[in-house]
Amino acid sequence: MPLTAPGADRLSLNGATVRKQWSLAQIIEGCARHGFRGISPWRDQVAALGLAKAKALIDQHGLVVSGLCRGGFFTKPGWLDDNRRAIEEAHVLGAQCLVLVVGGLAEGSRDLPRARAEVREGLARILPEARQAGVPLAIEPLHPMQAADRACINTLEHALDLCDELGDGIGVAVDAYHVWWDPKLEQQIRRAGKDRLLAYHICDWLVPTRDLLNDRGMMGDGVIDLPRLRGWVEGAGYGGLHEVEIFSEYWWQRDPDEVLAIIKERHAAT
Amino acid sequence: MPLTAPGADRLSLNGATVRKQWSLAQIIEGCARHGFRGISPWRDQVAALGLAKAKALIDQHGLVVSGLCRGGFFTKPGWLDDNRRAIEEAHVLGAQCLVLVVGGLAEGSRDLPRARAEVREGLARILPEARQAGVPLAIEPLHPMQAADRACINTLEHALDLCDELGDGIGVAVDAYHVWWDPKLEQQIRRAGKDRLLAYHICDWLVPTRDLLNDRGMMGDGVIDLPRLRGWVEGAGYGGLHEVEIFSEYWWQRDPDEVLAIIKERHAAT
Repeated sequence: MPLTAPGADRLSLNGATVRKQWSLAQIIEGCARHGFRGISPWRDQVAALGLAKAKALIDQHGLVVSGLCRGGFFTKPGWLDDNRRAIEEAHVLGAQCLVLVVGGLAEGSRDLPRARAEVREGLARILPEARQAGVPLAIEPLHPMQAADRACINTLEHALDLCDELGDGIGVAVDAYHVWWDPKLEQQIRRAGKDRLLAYHICDWLVPTRDLLNDRGMMGDGVIDLPRLRGWVEGAGYGGLHEVEIFSEYWWQRDPDEVLAIIKERHAAT
Repeated sequence: MPLTAPGADRLSLNGATVRKQWSLAQIIEGCARHGFRGISPWRDQVAALGLAKAKALIDQHGLVVSGLCRGGFFTKPGWLDDNRRAIEEAHVLGAQCLVLVVGGLAEGSRDLPRARAEVREGLARILPEARQAGVPLAIEPLHPMQAADRACINTLEHALDLCDELGDGIGVAVDAYHVWWDPKLEQQIRRAGKDRLLAYHICDWLVPTRDLLNDRGMMGDGVIDLPRLRGWVEGAGYGGLHEVEIFSEYWWQRDPDEVLAIIKERHAAT
């Protein structure tokens, strides 16, 4: 089906995109100035500004919080307290979800099945508290190249299998960068449906990619067929924001007002 | 089940591991000197030495050819002639399989489903000729981080779906580096079984990984649970060689005799 070009009223800015240049207060003001509908702040920047101040400033500018980044890391010591704080912060901010980067192998471990079992246990442990706080948990499957050090959930299918086991109040964040390569992507997005699709993140995959973490591309500069992906996501019932999240040494060097202007322009073609 | 430590009689050396230091003649002699059972040469090095000479030298040293690297790249112009030549060379060398790196997106394309369809058509086209030549074709699923530029078959499941469609004479090369992260790996190795498991490649995944192509690790230096993986592969009926393939700017700087000695030592613990 032909898609309508999306407007800035569908745009959310993930704070990581300009985090090296701007504080959270500046990001909030920038989003409002450029007509973005939403924002997805990172917890360290929320803490630096103060949770109550962040909430007040976001509300004052009429922004939606499309997600809070992030909880997870269930294979690291201290995960329980950290996730409890994350749920509380997401609740205060009225975030549409708490994004979970689930964690990779424990320090010194090669036992991936064990890491995955610990992630499952961690999710089961925090889910009742998240439900009570009214905070949907969004498992973000990360690219397999980040399986060891950041997240051992690397496909949408695996994330949705976990969701099915765990029940209500949990779903997925579909990030184009992490999942675009997956031959089962369309099928699994359809399986996820409206109830499990909690967030949609976009950027692009550059060829060549020079760094495993911080060389993501601006939409249109890479090889991801973003209009097709959006068609799948919206065809499955997702009606939320398109959150732009670009970790990039290149874009972190640019004037953030330019970055936001380019995002708006490129987003209209995705 | 507990595994017996493998001896050098199970070892094959993929020529890429020391290709920057040694010619094919030197690699063949090195393999023999260090007691490796097999070799997997690359076609450019075979061409440089001459096909007949390569065959004679390999035979003279009593080495098995665990695979020929490589055919594939079905999304590039000229793929048909190139694959026909590769089949012929594999036949002359008596290679146990022709390894296929299937190719990624065509130049300027973002259409991954189309690339995958072209790969399927290319495989169907060359398979009868490979069967006639007695050369098993081994699809090597590459890591998803290489989907755009090298191979758009990125999971064992996807590769085996293609094999099931195509019938006899085709299987998979399981390379630990490319598939170690896959949550369905054990299941799909079992599904592949003896008939589809044509090659087993090993090296290690380093944390951090500094380059998407040439930062593979020596066995034991990274996070892949190689003994567990070997247990799965051999449990599924694979009785072939363990082919060490390390693309690494680091190991390419080392004395190749040292590299082979270290491979032997590390292999005994995998």
